[in-house]
Amino acid sequence: MKELIYSHSYEPALAQYGDVEAIIDGDYRSSWNEHHERVSRLCHGLAHQLGVAPTDRFAVLALNSHQYLELWHAAFMGAGVINPLNLRLAPKELAYIITDSGTEAIFSDPTFAPLVAAARKEIGDADPIRKVVLIGEGDAPHDVGYEALLAAASPEMPREPEETDPVVLMYTGGTTGLPKGVLIEHRAEILNIYHAAMTIPSLDLGTYLLQTPMFHAASMLGILGPPIFGGRVVFIPMYSPEGVLDLIETHGVTDTLMVPTMIGLCLAHEKYRPERLASLRRLVYGASPMPEATLARLQQDLPDLDLLQGYGMTEACSTVTLLLPEDHAPGSPRLRSVGKPVLGVQLSIQDEEGRVLPRGEIGEVCTRGGHMMREYWNKPEATAETFRGGWYHTGDAGYQDEDGYVFLVDRVKDMIVTGGENVYSAEVESAISTHPDVAQVAVIGIPDEKWGEAVHAIVVPQPGVVITVEGIITHTRASIAGYKVPKSVDFRTEPLPLSGALKVLKRDLRAPYWKGHGKSIG
Amino acid sequence: MKELIYSHSYEPALAQYGDVEAIIDGDYRSSWNEHHERVSRLCHGLAHQLGVAPTDRFAVLALNSHQYLELWHAAFMGAGVINPLNLRLAPKELAYIITDSGTEAIFSDPTFAPLVAAARKEIGDADPIRKVVLIGEGDAPHDVGYEALLAAASPEMPREPEETDPVVLMYTGGTTGLPKGVLIEHRAEILNIYHAAMTIPSLDLGTYLLQTPMFHAASMLGILGPPIFGGRVVFIPMYSPEGVLDLIETHGVTDTLMVPTMIGLCLAHEKYRPERLASLRRLVYGASPMPEATLARLQQDLPDLDLLQGYGMTEACSTVTLLLPEDHAPGSPRLRSVGKPVLGVQLSIQDEEGRVLPRGEIGEVCTRGGHMMREYWNKPEATAETFRGGWYHTGDAGYQDEDGYVFLVDRVKDMIVTGGENVYSAEVESAISTHPDVAQVAVIGIPDEKWGEAVHAIVVPQPGVVITVEGIITHTRASIAGYKVPKSVDFRTEPLPLSGALKVLKRDLRAPYWKGHGKSIG
Repeated sequence: MKELIYSHSYEPALAQYGDVEAIIDGDYRSSWNEHHERVSRLCHGLAHQLGVAPTDRFAVLALNSHQYLELWHAAFMGAGVINPLNLRLAPKELAYIITDSGTEAIFSDPTFAPLVAAARKEIGDADPIRKVVLIGEGDAPHDVGYEALLAAASPEMPREPEETDPVVLMYTGGTTGLPKGVLIEHRAEILNIYHAAMTIPSLDLGTYLLQTPMFHAASMLGILGPPIFGGRVVFIPMYSPEGVLDLIETHGVTDTLMVPTMIGLCLAHEKYRPERLASLRRLVYGASPMPEATLARLQQDLPDLDLLQGYGMTEACSTVTLLLPEDHAPGSPRLRSVGKPVLGVQLSIQDEEGRVLPRGEIGEVCTRGGHMMREYWNKPEATAETFRGGWYHTGDAGYQDEDGYVFLVDRVKDMIVTGGENVYSAEVESAISTHPDVAQVAVIGIPDEKWGEAVHAIVVPQPGVVITVEGIITHTRASIAGYKVPKSVDFRTEPLPLSGALKVLKRDLRAPYWKGHGKSIG
Repeated sequence: MKELIYSHSYEPALAQYGDVEAIIDGDYRSSWNEHHERVSRLCHGLAHQLGVAPTDRFAVLALNSHQYLELWHAAFMGAGVINPLNLRLAPKELAYIITDSGTEAIFSDPTFAPLVAAARKEIGDADPIRKVVLIGEGDAPHDVGYEALLAAASPEMPREPEETDPVVLMYTGGTTGLPKGVLIEHRAEILNIYHAAMTIPSLDLGTYLLQTPMFHAASMLGILGPPIFGGRVVFIPMYSPEGVLDLIETHGVTDTLMVPTMIGLCLAHEKYRPERLASLRRLVYGASPMPEATLARLQQDLPDLDLLQGYGMTEACSTVTLLLPEDHAPGSPRLRSVGKPVLGVQLSIQDEEGRVLPRGEIGEVCTRGGHMMREYWNKPEATAETFRGGWYHTGDAGYQDEDGYVFLVDRVKDMIVTGGENVYSAEVESAISTHPDVAQVAVIGIPDEKWGEAVHAIVVPQPGVVITVEGIITHTRASIAGYKVPKSVDFRTEPLPLSGALKVLKRDLRAPYWKGHGKSIG
């Protein structure tokens, strides 16, 4: 069946909004009709100049741009499976992904083409890439220029895809070993947009600033939404607070999505003034917890701004829950939740045996529905493991309150079982981090003869101060139960190791403690 | 794949809204949780007491009630294929449908059980029905009472259906021959709800009055929507203006769907006062054109009411286009349109060879998307004919304006081709009906040696007045082009023949003129 494919929502919208200015990327301007014409040439070029068949992967390693949007839309028209690559990866990681995906064509830009070359050197003889296409001008090694590819192509759309054809292969961060390719079908991405559109009141994207990197699942609403809801898109090659403030003000941006860090940097910037953001109607945030102070400042400065928090993951492409504007009353306890499942998505909290837990009890957040990936690419065991009992296991520990709001407490793998009690590292970290001399903290479980695991804190003090183990323990005991208080504390001066997604790599922190204990350290 | 089934949207909602009062049916009250419990018993009873397998049909011939809603929801939980029967059908027509569908169990109520008996008598020996279940109390012949069925059953849901399993078999009116069974899959009904929910701003059904008959596709939003959007439902067994006014006022009804005739009767009722409808926030209307005077009165009396016009059909289960509140500015030319395709639905205007016509040109309205029926039951030829080129052919002639709004001009079969020109009977009827002495009018094409077809009007004068052919022709010539003006006029005193859906049966009007001419008269 073909019904749940992008063109069925996109083409009716083109007929209606096709001629207005829709894309703003530096000095570049185009309507959706002009964009569509370029996408059709790109599809033809992929097939006839690059030899990419509809089932083949093509990769993109590039800053945000209208060309990147054309590549996304070409995939959704059925030209191939897009493999958007994380810009923070090292050559060795890129080499692994290119080899694993068997990508034969890659699109890059002057900033990242040297990294492509470094990754290919890393692969050596097994390099599957036959063509490098350069977006924009430059000296970087490439086989064909993006505009030359389009100029030599005919404006011809490929055959309509089936809704169950794959369209995206997106590699996850890989905090636990090698990155895994998440293979997603057309219908899952379309249903994800449907779910969000049903849940968000009066979704009409107006002028959307696409500032999250376009390799990330958080960008999907900005990539697929604006054309079908009659919006226009403003691009920024890469986030900077000053650039974002300028673009919002210049183009009257109404809608955007940011992670809390991006919001914090904007509010803290010397050129920030609330009136520069006056055109914003709706701001979606997510991917990490929002600091209370940032949220309070935002609500005070922009009281008419609709705030939405999203929770999701690449495997759920991407939205699982939303906290809606009406749940953003200042001081509301719901602000600590990630909201409720979007319409069309099932969610349950399950114990280790797959039993659904009652409201209020902590377990693993599980979800199922039409928005899920098909599989981990070439990893049937990982796929089976994550889809146990027909439910996708998010790896997040949390609970639902009586009204269905989801509260996350930790990653399941970061939970500590000590003396039969579950301790959530995030709760302990939160208690320790209120100590004024603590710059960074991570809490892990380490082997303990008596307790099985013992709560252990690794603390980076503020520069130039000295804290004692007793100081940390006494401080912590004042706010959380005794069994959650660290049994031991290590201090270090170097920053904690972070993943590409800027999460603390607890696996690396745990490793030395568990060496020889035979436990999987996740 | 199972994702697009009702329980995936319904069960998460139950967990959230399950305990509040949700169903109001006379003195009967229940929460969605209580309703769900009864539905689960009904599913068990269908399987174990009535022998209905998930692929079997079960029929309902009954007034609106909460039991009817339970029957609908049992089908959507996977207990069987519901065959809701039109209450206006004659025993002979019912006999045809029961035989054609092979229904073995039928649910009825004291009002309609005698009609079931009459239909079965009509069928005679070939009667497939094994069990009649009576909703409510009464002497009508039946095998088991509805409450007894539930009491003897266990609260046990059937196996989850697949999204491509059939769930509804709904017979269309049949103005052109025998009624046809429209077979609909779970996913089509779910996507229809999704399409409406994406298109209607802030869909939240509040308190919904289900006043259209529950055998009709127009009731689907009221049947499937309220539980998943957290609404409650008020039932009226059968529409009456006084009953509707009372229920809206008593229960603070916020949302409902009515056909224009129902609205007109309410506004004209002696007990109508605008303040009795003060709780209404949203009124959807459709199925026939809204008289300008009715709309103007409604907008004047209830200026804050959001009005939406829907256009659709059973085969598209049911919504194809919506005219939104913002397009209801008094006097706007868009009020004569049926709005724009809902999100997720494709629509095009095609000529007889299946070519898509440019904006502004009249042709047949065609649609495709996930909302379409699977097929006409046991009628592969009719199915192939209506899905020519992959598009469902609605049989409606119309055009789209530059902004994509759809304007209907006629049924394709009622178009008259005279001297090579297309004449839309609806346009001619509209011109004639402004004559003050005309009570009813129908315009048809009749055989003509010179023109192929000639425009012919059949007029029912107002009681006690005399009109002449010249009077009609002169009046009509003043407002439409000469070739559209009737070449001949017949007068009759008896009302024009109407179909079960209250449409003029032009086929019957055409028949005597075309006898011996060998043309299909549609």
